[in-house]
Amino acid sequence: MEDALGAMRLDRELDPALFRAIVDQAPVSIILADRDGVIRAWNRASEALFGFAAPEVLGQSLDVIIPERLREAHWKGYNRSLASGETKYAGRVMTTRAVHKDGRRLYVDFSFGMLKDAAGAVVGAMAVGRDATERYLAERAGR
Amino acid sequence: MEDALGAMRLDRELDPALFRAIVDQAPVSIILADRDGVIRAWNRASEALFGFAAPEVLGQSLDVIIPERLREAHWKGYNRSLASGETKYAGRVMTTRAVHKDGRRLYVDFSFGMLKDAAGAVVGAMAVGRDATERYLAERAGR
Repeated sequence: MEDALGAMRLDRELDPALFRAIVDQAPVSIILADRDGVIRAWNRASEALFGFAAPEVLGQSLDVIIPERLREAHWKGYNRSLASGETKYAGRVMTTRAVHKDGRRLYVDFSFGMLKDAAGAVVGAMAVGRDATERYLAERAGR
Repeated sequence: MEDALGAMRLDRELDPALFRAIVDQAPVSIILADRDGVIRAWNRASEALFGFAAPEVLGQSLDVIIPERLREAHWKGYNRSLASGETKYAGRVMTTRAVHKDGRRLYVDFSFGMLKDAAGAVVGAMAVGRDATERYLAERAGR
């Protein structure tokens, strides 16, 4: 039997507090937003990438890092994914424009996924990102 | 005060079981190995990427996905990172050759990081990976 929360795949002897630490210390930005698009987890790499400290964004809308022009399309897709429990971006990397706290443009290689609870209900959505700004600008300059 | 396990950065109201679910359901491969290089967490995306189901690799050495020729260099770097508590790959993406269960070559964009407990002691190392095989082979063909 598969355990919906992944206990089968993650060593049962591990201190549960370590999973919080894995999320927080992961070498990539991990953002969890709830069904309302409110940020519920924002790890260290997210602080480094976007410039916002976690207390500045926990409880805030994802809009803080979404360029204004892209918000409407973002939320349309977000709500569609929540309703269906699936993202059309599964298995893909999306290089997406985002906003740093200081206002400058970032380009981020994002992977998106849904987060489900033990009963299979969609709790929210996850974004895992790596900074792609340098590569993106170099590629654009080379075109 | 900063909480070493990241409670400051991750919503305190979240069910702690959700952090296990975030690791397991993350849209990228997340592997945790302990100080001995033994695999302690292997999420769904790791199963999809490398072909090994978690029960096949939990408790096994990372060698299962490391090409034989690269193992010596891998473990030298691994032990150096554990001893210093830092990885020289911080903030970088390393495209690395890896082995699928069926024997075929994979190329994986890895980010590496250390995992520390609340006291700051190094518990192990994390690898976060995305499949880069298609891109790598296309780039090589284009050269």
